[in-house]
Amino acid sequence: MGKDSLLSLLEAEAGEYVSGEEISRKMNVSRTAIWKQVRKLETEGYIIEAVPRLGYRLTGKPSRLSVHELLPKLNTRSFGRNLRLLNTVHSTQDELRGLAEQGAQEGTLVIAEQQTNGRGRMGRSWISPAGKGIWMSLLLRPPVPLPHTPQLTLLAAVALSRAISRIIPIIIGIKWPNDLLVDGKKISGILLESAAEDERLRYVVVGLGVSVNLEPEDYPEELLLKAASLKMVSGSTINRSDLIAAILEEFERLYGLYLDEGFAPIRALWEAHSVTLNQQTQLNTPQGSFVGVPRGLDDMGGLQVELEDGSYRTVYSAEVSGV
Amino acid sequence: MGKDSLLSLLEAEAGEYVSGEEISRKMNVSRTAIWKQVRKLETEGYIIEAVPRLGYRLTGKPSRLSVHELLPKLNTRSFGRNLRLLNTVHSTQDELRGLAEQGAQEGTLVIAEQQTNGRGRMGRSWISPAGKGIWMSLLLRPPVPLPHTPQLTLLAAVALSRAISRIIPIIIGIKWPNDLLVDGKKISGILLESAAEDERLRYVVVGLGVSVNLEPEDYPEELLLKAASLKMVSGSTINRSDLIAAILEEFERLYGLYLDEGFAPIRALWEAHSVTLNQQTQLNTPQGSFVGVPRGLDDMGGLQVELEDGSYRTVYSAEVSGV
Repeated sequence: MGKDSLLSLLEAEAGEYVSGEEISRKMNVSRTAIWKQVRKLETEGYIIEAVPRLGYRLTGKPSRLSVHELLPKLNTRSFGRNLRLLNTVHSTQDELRGLAEQGAQEGTLVIAEQQTNGRGRMGRSWISPAGKGIWMSLLLRPPVPLPHTPQLTLLAAVALSRAISRIIPIIIGIKWPNDLLVDGKKISGILLESAAEDERLRYVVVGLGVSVNLEPEDYPEELLLKAASLKMVSGSTINRSDLIAAILEEFERLYGLYLDEGFAPIRALWEAHSVTLNQQTQLNTPQGSFVGVPRGLDDMGGLQVELEDGSYRTVYSAEVSGV
Repeated sequence: MGKDSLLSLLEAEAGEYVSGEEISRKMNVSRTAIWKQVRKLETEGYIIEAVPRLGYRLTGKPSRLSVHELLPKLNTRSFGRNLRLLNTVHSTQDELRGLAEQGAQEGTLVIAEQQTNGRGRMGRSWISPAGKGIWMSLLLRPPVPLPHTPQLTLLAAVALSRAISRIIPIIIGIKWPNDLLVDGKKISGILLESAAEDERLRYVVVGLGVSVNLEPEDYPEELLLKAASLKMVSGSTINRSDLIAAILEEFERLYGLYLDEGFAPIRALWEAHSVTLNQQTQLNTPQGSFVGVPRGLDDMGGLQVELEDGSYRTVYSAEVSGV
């Protein structure tokens, strides 16, 4: 028995109960097998009531993104115009990297309802259950030299933060370089994968993960102290298409500004949103740890950290945490 | 008839003539087909004498790299220790990138006798005929942040230049960032392809192409004004294994120095070898062209160019040419 047939059976009854006995007979499977399929559908976002003697009833379906819903909302020139909306994918990053190597154009977007192997920074896994978040990757082909790539990381954080604030009234702080925090909890993840030939960027794949409508039970318990969804911090369910459209619009606008005017305006916006600046901070770099006070960004996008002796050190790669 | 059978027939006669008639009969092919195969073998580096009435005679074989010859010459810890020596390859870069994605270790080396699709900077094709050059790619996994990648480009140029000077007594100038010139002619090409996740380099594939024993007739005529082989500039045939071993040794030594002491010593070596500094230069960047006098490298590996008004501009990506 496939789960699709159980699903179609429940759907055919349009919210009425179907007895386990009937399902068992029609599908020629055991009651235990039915139960397993029900649990599986529930993890995918279906809501199924099970009542003794009455049977099973479908009362809720997962929210699904659709191209038909999304495209009319898009207010962009190229971002998201070449769109691949997938149900389940290994990782949207890997998917889009493949397209990039085949020559896909700037602005190409891969969205997945669910990732089976979503990746975060430092190769950490990233929770991306079906239908509750935005798991997407955007292709850039920026005509800027390789050492400017950290600027794009910061730009992505500003764009995502502004887009979310347009949809729900929450205050978002950016923790260097690109974590978005609400009340100290992480609500999204950004991962840039770049490929370069000498000092020329061939492409950048920007991975954007936003925990939109996840419930506390979607998180492993140890994560609940440091991560939250937009629904958890705002109390409201958010239309994912609206948010995707806002992200693409903000991103395209800031990216255009960056290409026209350079890093200065992005730097100012980032610094205005940052929660990392001007406080005692521990920085763990691949070359060792130290403590200092981040004071701002330099021209390249590096973090300028004031040390105890008043000297400055510029950091491009570090994990930061309060002291 | 395959060329291998013609080759084995000629080889079996150990330098004696084999008549066209005999070949034709043994292989059951036309005289024209034999002639075509002879030409093909010649492009691969075989030397075949054709004398009317006597027939064909094999008088020279292409020089072949062998692992058995190369390994005992290696004086390195990891560079070249994991070695893949191939006959014909699309591009050693693509080959090694595939290995890098599968987790190959630092120092992994791909060498090919011949590339069918060798690539140079800016996607230009690169002449890499069989048996006459060094076409190889070396894998690095440097624990340095992404913006430091240009430093590795400069390091590669210094390492290659020093290795060549160890083998033959010629004076090599480095044209920014990494062209090696002898008497104004380019003798090698370096191409770094890097993959990064945020500001962390995942790997760098260093492509090294050295025109070792190419003859003038190996070059398209328009290239002869600006390119030459080591044999053409020095008058001697060079043992490629010796040169490969020297390159790997110099590269590993400088790379170790770089990881231990940072960019400063590499910068000093590069500046000492440079032919780009302190002269009026035209710089064509993706953002437009300008004229200035390069004065040195900055901490990141960018080229610091003095403009007419005395101000400085740092360039990471440009084609440079004398004015």
